[in-house]
Amino acid sequence: MKKFLLLFSVFFCMVAAAESGYDLWLRYPALGNSSVKSSYTKFTSISIDAAAATTTVLEREFLMALKGILSVKPSIYKGFNASAAVFVVPAAVAVQQKWMAASDTNSLGQEGFKMKSITFLGRQRLLITANTDAGLLYGSFQWLRMMASQQPITKLDTVCKPSLQWRMLNHWDNLTRTVERGYAGGSIWNWQTLPDYIDQRYIDYARANASIGINATVLTNVNANATTLTAPYLQKVKALADVFRPYHIKVFLTARFSAPIEIGHLKTADPYDPAVQQWWKDKAKEIYTLIPDFGGFLVKANSEGQPGPQNYGRNHADGANLLANAVKPYGGTIIWRAFVYSNESPDDRFKQPYAEFVPLDGKFTSNVLLQVKNGPIDFQPREPFHPLFGAMPKTPTMMEFQLTQEYLGFSTHLVYLAPMFKEVLNTDTYQPRQGSTVAKVIDGSTFGYSSTGMAGVSNIGSDLNWTGHPFAQANWYALGRLAWNPSLSAESIATEWIKQSFSNDAATVATISKIMLRSHEAVVNYMTPLGLHHIMGYGHHYGPAPWFKEASREDWNCTYFHKADSIGIGFNRTATGTNALVQYAPLVQANWNVLAITNKKWLTWFHHVPWQYKLGDGKTFWDELCLQYQWGVGEVRQMKQQWQTVAKQVDADRFRQVNMLLNIQEKEAIWWKDACLSYFQTFSKKPYPAGVEPPAQSLEYYQQLSFPYAPGNSH
Amino acid sequence: MKKFLLLFSVFFCMVAAAESGYDLWLRYPALGNSSVKSSYTKFTSISIDAAAATTTVLEREFLMALKGILSVKPSIYKGFNASAAVFVVPAAVAVQQKWMAASDTNSLGQEGFKMKSITFLGRQRLLITANTDAGLLYGSFQWLRMMASQQPITKLDTVCKPSLQWRMLNHWDNLTRTVERGYAGGSIWNWQTLPDYIDQRYIDYARANASIGINATVLTNVNANATTLTAPYLQKVKALADVFRPYHIKVFLTARFSAPIEIGHLKTADPYDPAVQQWWKDKAKEIYTLIPDFGGFLVKANSEGQPGPQNYGRNHADGANLLANAVKPYGGTIIWRAFVYSNESPDDRFKQPYAEFVPLDGKFTSNVLLQVKNGPIDFQPREPFHPLFGAMPKTPTMMEFQLTQEYLGFSTHLVYLAPMFKEVLNTDTYQPRQGSTVAKVIDGSTFGYSSTGMAGVSNIGSDLNWTGHPFAQANWYALGRLAWNPSLSAESIATEWIKQSFSNDAATVATISKIMLRSHEAVVNYMTPLGLHHIMGYGHHYGPAPWFKEASREDWNCTYFHKADSIGIGFNRTATGTNALVQYAPLVQANWNVLAITNKKWLTWFHHVPWQYKLGDGKTFWDELCLQYQWGVGEVRQMKQQWQTVAKQVDADRFRQVNMLLNIQEKEAIWWKDACLSYFQTFSKKPYPAGVEPPAQSLEYYQQLSFPYAPGNSH
Repeated sequence: MKKFLLLFSVFFCMVAAAESGYDLWLRYPALGNSSVKSSYTKFTSISIDAAAATTTVLEREFLMALKGILSVKPSIYKGFNASAAVFVVPAAVAVQQKWMAASDTNSLGQEGFKMKSITFLGRQRLLITANTDAGLLYGSFQWLRMMASQQPITKLDTVCKPSLQWRMLNHWDNLTRTVERGYAGGSIWNWQTLPDYIDQRYIDYARANASIGINATVLTNVNANATTLTAPYLQKVKALADVFRPYHIKVFLTARFSAPIEIGHLKTADPYDPAVQQWWKDKAKEIYTLIPDFGGFLVKANSEGQPGPQNYGRNHADGANLLANAVKPYGGTIIWRAFVYSNESPDDRFKQPYAEFVPLDGKFTSNVLLQVKNGPIDFQPREPFHPLFGAMPKTPTMMEFQLTQEYLGFSTHLVYLAPMFKEVLNTDTYQPRQGSTVAKVIDGSTFGYSSTGMAGVSNIGSDLNWTGHPFAQANWYALGRLAWNPSLSAESIATEWIKQSFSNDAATVATISKIMLRSHEAVVNYMTPLGLHHIMGYGHHYGPAPWFKEASREDWNCTYFHKADSIGIGFNRTATGTNALVQYAPLVQANWNVLAITNKKWLTWFHHVPWQYKLGDGKTFWDELCLQYQWGVGEVRQMKQQWQTVAKQVDADRFRQVNMLLNIQEKEAIWWKDACLSYFQTFSKKPYPAGVEPPAQSLEYYQQLSFPYAPGNSH
Repeated sequence: MKKFLLLFSVFFCMVAAAESGYDLWLRYPALGNSSVKSSYTKFTSISIDAAAATTTVLEREFLMALKGILSVKPSIYKGFNASAAVFVVPAAVAVQQKWMAASDTNSLGQEGFKMKSITFLGRQRLLITANTDAGLLYGSFQWLRMMASQQPITKLDTVCKPSLQWRMLNHWDNLTRTVERGYAGGSIWNWQTLPDYIDQRYIDYARANASIGINATVLTNVNANATTLTAPYLQKVKALADVFRPYHIKVFLTARFSAPIEIGHLKTADPYDPAVQQWWKDKAKEIYTLIPDFGGFLVKANSEGQPGPQNYGRNHADGANLLANAVKPYGGTIIWRAFVYSNESPDDRFKQPYAEFVPLDGKFTSNVLLQVKNGPIDFQPREPFHPLFGAMPKTPTMMEFQLTQEYLGFSTHLVYLAPMFKEVLNTDTYQPRQGSTVAKVIDGSTFGYSSTGMAGVSNIGSDLNWTGHPFAQANWYALGRLAWNPSLSAESIATEWIKQSFSNDAATVATISKIMLRSHEAVVNYMTPLGLHHIMGYGHHYGPAPWFKEASREDWNCTYFHKADSIGIGFNRTATGTNALVQYAPLVQANWNVLAITNKKWLTWFHHVPWQYKLGDGKTFWDELCLQYQWGVGEVRQMKQQWQTVAKQVDADRFRQVNMLLNIQEKEAIWWKDACLSYFQTFSKKPYPAGVEPPAQSLEYYQQLSFPYAPGNSH
């Protein structure tokens, strides 16, 4: 009868639970007939010894998870209870019970945890222990993740702690609920109904983040609105902070540098002005009175028209320190963005952040972090690592990745970003010496940074499934996991995400993993192969527009970045060009400053490459460019074919959704190929090589397409 | 064991199915131990004899519903099958089987259906029959509604058909996905991913509408954007029309009158210009080629700055007929809005639509309907019926109600609107004779209109539960049910909605029904008692601002509408004032043109009432005004108390949501009372009577509140 009952309940739960994607990777699906089942069912009584708020959220999570996975209602004991099978208890208790040596507690740090299989009173138990409630939370989620992905849990003895201190999301969300570069509906923050209405989404957002170790969120757009800092809005922010606190998530806000003028009614925002300094101190006091664990401010200043210290003849350190001094008494942090470029036309935008920030190294107050985009331009499908990584030994540089697919097909293209993140993290900066990868710079080990972090620009919105594309959830997931441990592989993260999100069936996991792991290279190829960059539509950034040259500043034009002419294509950043390469260590320069030895993926990023240039295999650059575009299209077609093979293993709703999205991706991959090749051919004057499908329409057709309401372009 | 199994499955389904509200009134919850259960279980095999598309959607719905309600998978037979227990078959089949007389088919019309308990081959069966697939669809949903609300289904013999031809939603949704006057997130139409991505919401939207008889939807804002009519957007509209077609829902668009200039590149949009006429004919042909059953256009012209025929010296009939002639060959309909007011300051906005449209009666082409708001100003909490109802014997006037709560507390106030709708529908226009209620005007019976309709301005958005407030779903539901049958009572509609949406428990239904039925009177009293109107915040319309007088035109000022002074308050619309009353029939005028006999709910709507004026019970008007505001607040407090009593009968998520929302409603009801009374007291110079809680803050406090990002104000 038991088996019958199980099938019965599974049948009905499947009927009830439409797979909208809302549950993210916390679906806790029924285990089925997995071999691990009999071991799991031994662990359904849990002793939680933690603060009340932590206990409450853990109890709720355990109830949900074990009902889902095992169809049982677990027994939850609050406080230490010897009859439990699972002990979620402080390290002090574990030491007292002799389950752990006192000397081991140091290794757990402030957020780490230990999971250990122990025998107690003659029975096997599972210990999850930590120095803090945060550690207990993370250990608990790790246990649930292991069960959801059907891993053995009977012979455990592991210690796990985060490599980076700040693991955060940056929301580019406006008070109007539009989201700049958002492609998954509107903002999930309903400012109108806050602080009195707590949307269930806020709670589920916190659960999802806690489950992958994200411990900070910046609620508002870096193109900041001073109204955020007014008293009514701070009440709303406090309400969110109260929701997030039990999940160990700190709230940050963006600070508009001119807020002292706009809402403080001062005449200046000069960081040297005592009234300005006092205004920020008073504002910090007001905020910390409401939110004692407020994280701090993220600031975009003197970039793309935003106000900043340079308006008053001061530098970025002056600006950052102004705010840092205000929040320092409360333990607050200032995250200053290195994505700056002036409103005047520069010689090469690539070079500006390095030029501005390197001279300021050592000038920042100790509670300032410098947040640097992964690459020197702006979240292109592929960029070399940013030259500031490795160049700021005295200033903690943290990573800014973009999850929202501003330049990678919005939310309709399946692009798993972890391989791109890993490519950057694994690159050697050679500063101060070989082996100083970007990962080792940002984790603080290279220069002994006092604080560290990784941020992802959120791809989250009000869509039912949070991210628009079901697979875009994987990028949110990967950000959290890589910020916890940058040495995890893209493949292992994909595997655990697939198991939790879709299926534990081995063949299904393998197929979906294959689709995900090749997807980034595919999009690079059908959009911007061989080092091309910034050739997308103006403003909204939707679709190809390599011909675009109507912008008010030169470096908003696509033609500025590819420089195609009768001779060739590409941006010479070597010594004979803008010499941006000089911002890298000599051994890095050596990889890229000679055309003949430059990896083909960076060719036009650093060189103006003749159409006739012969690659190693004898193909001309023009032919290779055409074939790369075609290869990208072919990859999408293969992804489509592979997706069909998992039809029976994936719920019908998401199977159908992904199918529709892959059709869009194929259509748009062809569009990119056709538009770009049509246009570049006007310079190369060469025919398409064999194997390349000729464009379906004329160049004029692609040039006249217009998308006045493409999403994400709002401020 | 059966009982155990049932409990078991219920337990697990409850775990799996979080009550997010997404399922609306189509939750199909398990029946439990209802007395009707044994009879229902006899009807789990169903023969569907309909077109393929109808069969497909009915099969899906039956599967979902019977699994939910009865925990069974029904047997579905496509085509006629004698072994079925339920026959969903054409009237011709029913007649052939002698289950219905041939003469009875006429009574079913094009959308009606017959439900009849029959005996066939010795067994009891249920017949659902109709002349059309639309009727079969509606009959099937009626059957499911009866089961979800646990009504007996064994002795049926009813015919049911709609009273109105067009039962429609008007979406004020922009191409940017903002929603004008939307308070439930963004637009559900994702124009970016259409036509290739069909969001599950589109399908569930169609199901919900079909289940309550809504058969038309206007996708776009009445403040129209000509881009909607361009080729790429028509492809997107076609995709939605294809989704909606099996659910018998026709798609309409709004037409911007100047589209021939903006997207047609003509020099004029003059309806007399042959090129303009040809442009609309060509556009109609283009649309109908894609969407053969396209409904037509809804037009807002020469109102609030929108372009229209008056720009060219033509009248509204000229404008409407221009479009009507273009769509007529395809059976299309033009819905022309009567909500017009000029950009010049009028003497009383109330009077303008009547003045403009009555002279045009009889001048409209036969496929034009005139859509008239329920009242003469603009969806205020309470308005007298619009004087155009009854005044247009030769022009079909259809009703425009507003579901989105622009002036009724946005989506945070629980306000059930059916009592307000009924108040208007039941009012006698006395034109041409006594008994000609608004309902009998719009259903065509008074003047023999060739077409009829009722529209609701949608309150639907991207929020998980569609409408923001769980109870706002009831207004969508009520619109559909009243458009089908305007004689249904507000109470009966509430009852069936509650049973489907929350619980069949009798005490719970009674309590929630009580809350709903008194909610509209409550909001009128805490916002605009005794005939007050248009005293809300400027622009966004959020909260009270009776002091507002800074607008660029006089009739956008609140002071214009209440005219409070040292003598009294109210807008004299009698013969000694603007004489707007003369637009009503003499017997209607007689109710309202003498202060002494005017029902107190209309006092300041038609009269400037002295503060000292004594009401029937001896109270002064000032005291009554104060007490009405206080009564409104008290009602909300009672609603809160009553809601607590259903805690155990309602799912935890929605119970908690409604609690938070009622707290907001109480806070804002007090705010309205305090702000309005503080302000009006500066004129009345009278103390607050006993029983009225004095305002918590100074008038200046309320006046300085500002809400720069209140939602819904976007265009």
